[in-house]
Amino acid sequence: MKYDMREMTWQEFDRIRHEKIVILPVGSTEQHGPHLPLSVDAIIAEGLSLMVAESIGGIVAPTIYYGYKSAPLSGGGPLFPGTMDLNAVTFMNLVHDVLEELIRDGVKKILILNGHYENEDFILEAVDLLSRKYEDVKIIEGSWWDQVSQHAMDRVFDEVEFPGWDLEHAAIAETSLTMYFRPEFVRIDRLIEDGVEQQLSYSVYPAPKEIVPKSGLLATARSSSPEKGKLLAEDITYGYVNILKKEFNI
Amino acid sequence: MKYDMREMTWQEFDRIRHEKIVILPVGSTEQHGPHLPLSVDAIIAEGLSLMVAESIGGIVAPTIYYGYKSAPLSGGGPLFPGTMDLNAVTFMNLVHDVLEELIRDGVKKILILNGHYENEDFILEAVDLLSRKYEDVKIIEGSWWDQVSQHAMDRVFDEVEFPGWDLEHAAIAETSLTMYFRPEFVRIDRLIEDGVEQQLSYSVYPAPKEIVPKSGLLATARSSSPEKGKLLAEDITYGYVNILKKEFNI
Amino acid sequence: MKYDMREMTWQEFDRIRHEKIVILPVGSTEQHGPHLPLSVDAIIAEGLSLMVAESIGGIVAPTIYYGYKSAPLSGGGPLFPGTMDLNAVTFMNLVHDVLEELIRDGVKKILILNGHYENEDFILEAVDLLSRKYEDVKIIEGSWWDQVSQHAMDRVFDEVEFPGWDLEHAAIAETSLTMYFRPEFVRIDRLIEDGVEQQLSYSVYPAPKEIVPKSGLLATARSSSPEKGKLLAEDITYGYVNILKKEFNI
Amino acid sequence: MKYDMREMTWQEFDRIRHEKIVILPVGSTEQHGPHLPLSVDAIIAEGLSLMVAESIGGIVAPTIYYGYKSAPLSGGGPLFPGTMDLNAVTFMNLVHDVLEELIRDGVKKILILNGHYENEDFILEAVDLLSRKYEDVKIIEGSWWDQVSQHAMDRVFDEVEFPGWDLEHAAIAETSLTMYFRPEFVRIDRLIEDGVEQQLSYSVYPAPKEIVPKSGLLATARSSSPEKGKLLAEDITYGYVNILKKEFNI
Amino acid sequence: MKYDMREMTWQEFDRIRHEKIVILPVGSTEQHGPHLPLSVDAIIAEGLSLMVAESIGGIVAPTIYYGYKSAPLSGGGPLFPGTMDLNAVTFMNLVHDVLEELIRDGVKKILILNGHYENEDFILEAVDLLSRKYEDVKIIEGSWWDQVSQHAMDRVFDEVEFPGWDLEHAAIAETSLTMYFRPEFVRIDRLIEDGVEQQLSYSVYPAPKEIVPKSGLLATARSSSPEKGKLLAEDITYGYVNILKKEFNI
Amino acid sequence: MKYDMREMTWQEFDRIRHEKIVILPVGSTEQHGPHLPLSVDAIIAEGLSLMVAESIGGIVAPTIYYGYKSAPLSGGGPLFPGTMDLNAVTFMNLVHDVLEELIRDGVKKILILNGHYENEDFILEAVDLLSRKYEDVKIIEGSWWDQVSQHAMDRVFDEVEFPGWDLEHAAIAETSLTMYFRPEFVRIDRLIEDGVEQQLSYSVYPAPKEIVPKSGLLATARSSSPEKGKLLAEDITYGYVNILKKEFNI
Repeated sequence: MKYDMREMTWQEFDRIRHEKIVILPVGSTEQHGPHLPLSVDAIIAEGLSLMVAESIGGIVAPTIYYGYKSAPLSGGGPLFPGTMDLNAVTFMNLVHDVLEELIRDGVKKILILNGHYENEDFILEAVDLLSRKYEDVKIIEGSWWDQVSQHAMDRVFDEVEFPGWDLEHAAIAETSLTMYFRPEFVRIDRLIEDGVEQQLSYSVYPAPKEIVPKSGLLATARSSSPEKGKLLAEDITYGYVNILKKEFNI
Repeated sequence: MKYDMREMTWQEFDRIRHEKIVILPVGSTEQHGPHLPLSVDAIIAEGLSLMVAESIGGIVAPTIYYGYKSAPLSGGGPLFPGTMDLNAVTFMNLVHDVLEELIRDGVKKILILNGHYENEDFILEAVDLLSRKYEDVKIIEGSWWDQVSQHAMDRVFDEVEFPGWDLEHAAIAETSLTMYFRPEFVRIDRLIEDGVEQQLSYSVYPAPKEIVPKSGLLATARSSSPEKGKLLAEDITYGYVNILKKEFNI
Repeated sequence: MKYDMREMTWQEFDRIRHEKIVILPVGSTEQHGPHLPLSVDAIIAEGLSLMVAESIGGIVAPTIYYGYKSAPLSGGGPLFPGTMDLNAVTFMNLVHDVLEELIRDGVKKILILNGHYENEDFILEAVDLLSRKYEDVKIIEGSWWDQVSQHAMDRVFDEVEFPGWDLEHAAIAETSLTMYFRPEFVRIDRLIEDGVEQQLSYSVYPAPKEIVPKSGLLATARSSSPEKGKLLAEDITYGYVNILKKEFNI
Repeated sequence: MKYDMREMTWQEFDRIRHEKIVILPVGSTEQHGPHLPLSVDAIIAEGLSLMVAESIGGIVAPTIYYGYKSAPLSGGGPLFPGTMDLNAVTFMNLVHDVLEELIRDGVKKILILNGHYENEDFILEAVDLLSRKYEDVKIIEGSWWDQVSQHAMDRVFDEVEFPGWDLEHAAIAETSLTMYFRPEFVRIDRLIEDGVEQQLSYSVYPAPKEIVPKSGLLATARSSSPEKGKLLAEDITYGYVNILKKEFNI
Repeated sequence: MKYDMREMTWQEFDRIRHEKIVILPVGSTEQHGPHLPLSVDAIIAEGLSLMVAESIGGIVAPTIYYGYKSAPLSGGGPLFPGTMDLNAVTFMNLVHDVLEELIRDGVKKILILNGHYENEDFILEAVDLLSRKYEDVKIIEGSWWDQVSQHAMDRVFDEVEFPGWDLEHAAIAETSLTMYFRPEFVRIDRLIEDGVEQQLSYSVYPAPKEIVPKSGLLATARSSSPEKGKLLAEDITYGYVNILKKEFNI
Repeated sequence: MKYDMREMTWQEFDRIRHEKIVILPVGSTEQHGPHLPLSVDAIIAEGLSLMVAESIGGIVAPTIYYGYKSAPLSGGGPLFPGTMDLNAVTFMNLVHDVLEELIRDGVKKILILNGHYENEDFILEAVDLLSRKYEDVKIIEGSWWDQVSQHAMDRVFDEVEFPGWDLEHAAIAETSLTMYFRPEFVRIDRLIEDGVEQQLSYSVYPAPKEIVPKSGLLATARSSSPEKGKLLAEDITYGYVNILKKEFNI
């Protein structure tokens, strides 16, 4: 059974498009410290989307690899080479058009699975505009970190204290999930201890160089493991599946 | 001494524009429950801006009264009449053009004082685009709730437990601040007990009617008072003044 | 009884939105000579809107304080600090979105009361686009100077000859109206005699500095008075009320 | 000697582009009553541009035949078939790009000769945006009716009283000029007496059918003649030539 | 009988708009070597449109004289003065608005007759967007070179071998057609032998100067003649008429 | 050695970004008959990009999986479910922003490797706009089919006659290349004989259903093989490498 739309022929997609939930993974290309690859946000969003699709028999649309701008305060923004930032209008239109094409193909149930914090408000603008036009389509949007259960949190943050999601950039959760989905991309030998005490309570432009540590890390990734990655992936999948069951009566 | 740009002649503005910090209050027109007026976010942003301007000798630009869309999860979005939502492109362009006009007038130090949660990411897109173009201008952006000290929090949430800022819509902080800045607009007789236990961990479109209580309240406003408003206003002003001192060496 | 939407709770607005006429005052932030504040256009539009609303039981939406670009020939354009010019696309979208939100709230009768000459054509573009989409909504747009009766003209221009509306910038009508609505903002001690004989019959870009006098005045404000302001305000209100009566059968 | 850019080879244009003034005629496609063709505004703008170019040795760029929307109050707007209205954004971008191409070709002196009232504010927005970017280019914009001398007015309005330019739609001036430039397009046999007493002092959307007479005429064209057309054409040309002499020191 | 909409009064257009096919000629202003004028693409598109209109009793809308950017590989792009390139968004909006105005006037059958290679994909985007909105309107788009019969090809390329349409810029077909439609604009005395062997298989930006010959010619125009122009014009007209007969059942 | 930017850490990218050529593969999600998956265009563009990068030591940016609209005449456009069409503005902005981010990271040599016919003109618009702004960056764009040598053509089209690239949709070249790059995605058992004799010489909107065969095939894929895929891939890689050597002196 196929879940990845990229692998389907048009006829395979055609047969199931009217009943299935389509999941759109939205990631980014952004620095994730010295030990993680640039596409972490896309890898995690895509990996989780496939797990959710397998659980409920859904379809995963091609992952969006370019996301909205990394914020200086959270990912270092334009200070790090390799971060690829779309302008807001571009990113909103991209999400808008992809969703509209699904809708024009008769899809009525959509989950947007977001893996990059800064994407969220711009995804919702695209969804809002579409939703005014296509009232009979139901669209759910949720970032993966908002679906982690307390139970999983306790086990993932067993050694290190949870610093808050705003500092969990390239830290334990993302590192563990990438170790689970794409171990060959993780340079665990380059993992260093770095981080910030606390984020500023405001934004400054142009972004001062010292706004994030030179490594790009906001919190330690120490104690990350593929096992924690698996635990998180299954926990989050369970969370999304429950949402879909409730919202789509499946 | 005048701080409000609306009251200045062009010559008065002309004389001080090169040295002063200009503060742009950004609000919204949005439901704030049965006891607060639609312009709460603008009233608070404007009130605080004037207090900050007085403290540092700054200039307050005309308040933006129309903001980005109220999110269904936080303010009820399009479910409540009276909420006036600008599209993302419109709002970003508006902030962009206002800032660019200040910059073209020679202003080099700007503070954007935000009073509506949903505005923030779109303000920052406008600032990012300008910042690429005008590299010698420094722009600070901060929402008022991010500047409240722990000390003030303890005194404001003395009776009621702090529910988190995402649920503090039309609740104790906003009610107290409005009672301080514009007591004549608060219908304290209509204050009711209402709220939500916890927000959903995801968004749904079209927004279901039950996503926020019928009243529009996400948490109780019980124990609000003009004294708490004054305390908050002075505490927040102090926070902003410290930021400006640090960032602009004043 | 409240007329100002900014002061209303959403429930107060909710109860009356279906029957009432909503008035949107559109102003600008623009130089108005050495004796008038930057927000004259907004002050007058807002003041007149409240008077009209009181006369017919309408609702005044939050005033738009930033308008379309001041033209070099009429207000001096970018030559004067303090003038804040929105780009055409921004301003049209702003008016468009504000009106669309009213319409989505069920409002069917709208008056746009304009106080800045250069706004008019761009307001009408926004209205035209909306009008194609919402055919059952009636929108009236009129600038205040087009509603002054001959009778009032004769009394206001008793000492000084009327120079034409294109030269009446910061002159007798605007000065008198601001003296009536916001006397505390008028620096009558700074009033000087200045002006131009006749405007050019064409536009030049970049705008030459000598295109308007250094003071920003196109015609004298001599003989302005709060009494003339009151006369004008009542005369114009009467004009708008008659239009609304005729167009909305009230 | 060629003046019309459409007829030139690129080498012919190349040789003169750096010194010559380039004139851009901007017209429209709009109803002009029962006796005039749809392209009156373009015909007159093009005809005058060629006369000015001949007088000063300039270059006439291809005429813009599609203009900004006809206003209901002046030309009947969308009420008349055959009127072709561009949206504001489209029209501004069109003028912008055409001018920018001239500038990128090294042209430094430009005259925009406008023949459709509603175009003017949108042309100026395009010019303003360009002018910020190309500070060494001088752009003049003027509508032809603003260049008519008092002397010519007296002779053209010898039988009929001048109703004001806002009512002079398809009336004596436009009819005479078209009789002069393109007599074969004028159906003088279909000329009727029609018109309005006075325009409304405000705009209404959707435009009511009775806002202009069924014929599309706002004032009489009686007493029009090719002789008057010639007189006007020469008078206006003289006006433009004087402007260009003054502004470009030629 | 009139076919050119520019010459019609609104009443003449009104009487026939519901049944007639409207043809929109789309050209460009682009270098066409030392012997042809800048408006070749517009001249040919307009000339053919009038011939087609005469054959089927259609209406020709005002020609679009400014087209999408000349590609460096085919017409030399920005390397040649006199080429006037619209940006993609501008050109698409222009075509979109012109077509939408026809449709809003009740026109149901449209032919877009394209004379500039680079226009085509952008015309189709405009048509696609309209077509989603107005499902009962049928729009045909075709470039003239795609309608030439083999029979005509054999006779036009009797002396010189056909180099492919991508190299036929300012060559035999365009030269002959211009000699037929506007002989007075052809400087046959300046015709030179020039051209390229083969185009590059890729694009380079910025465009290197040597990408096309200095003359702007990609292939020889030798053996061009007004007779060949007539032959081509009639052959292409025949092609279009057959398409319209088939598609519109006329 | 890594070539895929998605797998690199930001530091790995940082070390090489100034000297390396960056290759951007641009594909689409589009029907490719009953035997090929929806992502064929992206698979081929990505596969070739990696081969070219390996040959010259380049970097492959994340593949663009959503392309410009499939044309009805070539890929069936909106007639086939599973085809995901971006609007022109969205797609141009996407390509624009991705390239601009590379350029802002200091990349000076870029190859855009296109795998979807309809993308090309819109990619070039994005490149043109960037190229005006960043004059020291060299950007090459080429579609893979334009790089196939005659030698390879002869061997690929040994059994079946080459129908022209406009009909080679899901036919021998694309099928063989997909069999080479992603054999597991090819459903060779579903391969059928289908196709069109000749494409129409014009476009029709709305697209009639019979414009392409029901299967989505425009020409036969018979005689496809992974060996032919390998041959093509190596031939095309050789072509691109030669272009890069010539254009970047490597």
